[in-house]
Amino acid sequence: MHTFHAVNPATERPLSGEFPEHGAKEVDLAAMAASEVAKAFRQTTPAQRSSLLHAIADALESARDTIVARAELESALPNARLNGELSRTTAQLRLFADVAVGGLWQEAIFDSANPDRQPLPKPDIRRHNIALGPVAVFGASNFPLAFSTAGGDTASALAAGCPVIVKGHPAHPGTSEIVAQCIAKALEQEQLPQAIFTLLQGTSHELGQAVVTHPSIKAVGFTGSIHGGRALFDLAQQRPEPIPFFGELGASNPVFILPQRMDNQAESLAEEYLMSMNMGCGQFCTKPAVVFITQGDASERFLQAMREGIKAQTGQTMLTSGIKSNYLTQSQRRAQQSGLTQTQSSPESGVPSILFETTSEIWRNNPQWQEEIFGPQSIVVVCQESEEMISLSQSLAGSLTATIHADADDYPLAKRLLPELEEVAGRIVFNGWPTGVEVSYAMVHGGPYPASTMPASTSVGAEAIKRWLRPVAYQSVPDALLPCSLQQDNPLNVRCSVDGK
Amino acid sequence: MHTFHAVNPATERPLSGEFPEHGAKEVDLAAMAASEVAKAFRQTTPAQRSSLLHAIADALESARDTIVARAELESALPNARLNGELSRTTAQLRLFADVAVGGLWQEAIFDSANPDRQPLPKPDIRRHNIALGPVAVFGASNFPLAFSTAGGDTASALAAGCPVIVKGHPAHPGTSEIVAQCIAKALEQEQLPQAIFTLLQGTSHELGQAVVTHPSIKAVGFTGSIHGGRALFDLAQQRPEPIPFFGELGASNPVFILPQRMDNQAESLAEEYLMSMNMGCGQFCTKPAVVFITQGDASERFLQAMREGIKAQTGQTMLTSGIKSNYLTQSQRRAQQSGLTQTQSSPESGVPSILFETTSEIWRNNPQWQEEIFGPQSIVVVCQESEEMISLSQSLAGSLTATIHADADDYPLAKRLLPELEEVAGRIVFNGWPTGVEVSYAMVHGGPYPASTMPASTSVGAEAIKRWLRPVAYQSVPDALLPCSLQQDNPLNVRCSVDGK
Repeated sequence: MHTFHAVNPATERPLSGEFPEHGAKEVDLAAMAASEVAKAFRQTTPAQRSSLLHAIADALESARDTIVARAELESALPNARLNGELSRTTAQLRLFADVAVGGLWQEAIFDSANPDRQPLPKPDIRRHNIALGPVAVFGASNFPLAFSTAGGDTASALAAGCPVIVKGHPAHPGTSEIVAQCIAKALEQEQLPQAIFTLLQGTSHELGQAVVTHPSIKAVGFTGSIHGGRALFDLAQQRPEPIPFFGELGASNPVFILPQRMDNQAESLAEEYLMSMNMGCGQFCTKPAVVFITQGDASERFLQAMREGIKAQTGQTMLTSGIKSNYLTQSQRRAQQSGLTQTQSSPESGVPSILFETTSEIWRNNPQWQEEIFGPQSIVVVCQESEEMISLSQSLAGSLTATIHADADDYPLAKRLLPELEEVAGRIVFNGWPTGVEVSYAMVHGGPYPASTMPASTSVGAEAIKRWLRPVAYQSVPDALLPCSLQQDNPLNVRCSVDGK
Repeated sequence: MHTFHAVNPATERPLSGEFPEHGAKEVDLAAMAASEVAKAFRQTTPAQRSSLLHAIADALESARDTIVARAELESALPNARLNGELSRTTAQLRLFADVAVGGLWQEAIFDSANPDRQPLPKPDIRRHNIALGPVAVFGASNFPLAFSTAGGDTASALAAGCPVIVKGHPAHPGTSEIVAQCIAKALEQEQLPQAIFTLLQGTSHELGQAVVTHPSIKAVGFTGSIHGGRALFDLAQQRPEPIPFFGELGASNPVFILPQRMDNQAESLAEEYLMSMNMGCGQFCTKPAVVFITQGDASERFLQAMREGIKAQTGQTMLTSGIKSNYLTQSQRRAQQSGLTQTQSSPESGVPSILFETTSEIWRNNPQWQEEIFGPQSIVVVCQESEEMISLSQSLAGSLTATIHADADDYPLAKRLLPELEEVAGRIVFNGWPTGVEVSYAMVHGGPYPASTMPASTSVGAEAIKRWLRPVAYQSVPDALLPCSLQQDNPLNVRCSVDGK
């Protein structure tokens, strides 16, 4: 078998470790094995799956130093960030452990029988959700832990009772391997079959294609670029049996700063914006890529503070040399387009931060500037009047988030802007910044395409489990044959609604 | 503009009335108009939408005789059936009126803020579901009322707050037009814009294609054949912005009769089966197209009763001459394949009912027999041993339903069969027949492809509203700016979960 190695993005030199180049054959073996254990795994109790998720979290915690050290070498992300990301990853696993036993995911609904109904008796019908079957998860480059091997997609799929095949991101194969070993250990400890989880590694497009098109795979979770994600989405839809493809493909995360807020907070807004756009070297899907402001003195102070702040940025290393060269190429191409003023930092190492400025009029004529450039780059659009923000919001592409900064006098405009932004985004942030995604019950990390290929779903938070489920109704099935969660004496203590109540 | 007319399938002669052949231009006008009213419509209160749905039901009730008379001419379905179908249609509209005000569809979820959390404060996040925007609905040939112009898809989409464009089925344009007039009257009465609902008519494939590919359309509801449905599904997925396509494309609705049940009930099972497969001339998506039994004396009595029952069937008229010729062609083609025994009726008019018989061994070698033949035709598969039913169930294609007939001694086998059938179907029926779909809270009318192109959805019952919704989260948004359903004092009395409880 061919092998590949990881590269240290800081030095651009190869790292130790040889990793297998998996292909269609390994996909077939893993998917067939996952398929064989799928029925037994979906019939485990929620408590068993909760126990597995806690065991994975414990195993990751035990290997914390090893994982973070390797991830640091492979991603060039700072140690503190990676330690935080590991904590987030274990918190996600434990949240889904709670979600599994909480039972809301089953969406149990009962219809009472009415044998006397005319013209026909009304049957007893009970429905709940069951696991879809083996699921494929694509590791993301920018979250080597929280959106990768044991990340949110894996955690939610295991909570649902779906076996998982992870296609690891080739930028951090060593991290993926250590994390996969933790999962293997947890499965062994819980006396569950190893086929419930498989990590496949490789650098070829064919690997991802083989995963998405394998007939045993019943759904896909993906976080990445529009280009790669759309190609895989298309393959998933063109299968003889199309499958749900939950792809999070990109977002511009528009921010609207309303006039009074700007008057009151120009300097602190600039400081926060600078931090948000540069966080993680701008390699977050929630980076604010466009900020709308209204011209005026306060905005001038805001822009001045931004320009100075940008110039003072020290360079950060990007995740891979490919991402770096894309960032530089796309930024240079954009800088050459007329109508944009550019301010950039001159770091001694790493990549520059870039702030573009333009006017609302020019912005309207350049819809291509909504396309995400992955990296520490953002555009400020200056409106002549705040009223323009309404019409500007109406031409925005689908996004993960949309943000309003407003003080009390801005509320009348904010109240009109908010329903426009509901049509654009999965999450509306007020007087904050979009980076930093809470892993909670109410979170929505999704939105109209291209933010998500399935706008009814979220890829972060408790509701993410619903991506891996489908409903089944049982008509007149006797208690002795019903699944536990639907039996009359409710042994699993599942919450349900009865006759719409 | 070109026009077309309806044909009476009983006489094959044209009916009165000229109907417009709409095309891309009319689609564009309707979709743009729907898009313009979409934001205002989704922001109406649930009570307003409930009132609209009741008004539509009232208007249909007022026009009952006119609607049923025209539908009878256009579909050749019996008067009693169409009267029942109209009652079902108004019941669906009233169910979704209740669902709209019930508020469960909003799936409101709150996260409490915790300003003291370390290392970062926890924000207040609230999520609910909002309407997707304009929705396209394709009328079905076999339910000119309940799955057409004011059918379940339209009712659930209006309840959600989505404007609807119906592409009427060309087999019953007159019925569609009268129903559309009822909806127009209800909109006027409720002082809502007419653009909330548009009926487009025509016989061309281009009309349906233009509807599915229009950028203002945000989701599609479809009930029909695999061939036509898959082509439209593909178009919906290939759009620059892919959209959810909820297609119900076909099902074989397998039935398993276990040995003791057969011993006890052979004759009544035959009687029920005969009625279920011939109901509506076999033109139901839930027709039992394959029945698995075990060889033995009782099964022989069952088969004998079936053969006699089939021979005694009087012919029924099919919905259209196209459906009739497909039925005859496909049945003849199947009859010529080796390994099938055929019994058929010899009706003086209408189409024959056909029963095929085969063995489990031959069935295994002919997977093409799982393909649905729309019409009064079904296959009985005789197993040598009931144990075979487990492996036979594992090679079934996705289906709307799967049925188990079992008496107490059959329970051990039924208990093993049930988890297999969960993987095949959206609804499991016990000691009953799949035809007759209850419109209720717990109903699931969907299942793995091709039963549904979106296996997580149902197209019948209260949960069908979720097809037209997507979630939005509001982070730290002040009460004054939040949508009513998420405000602290809960003016709409929406049920919600807080912090996972």
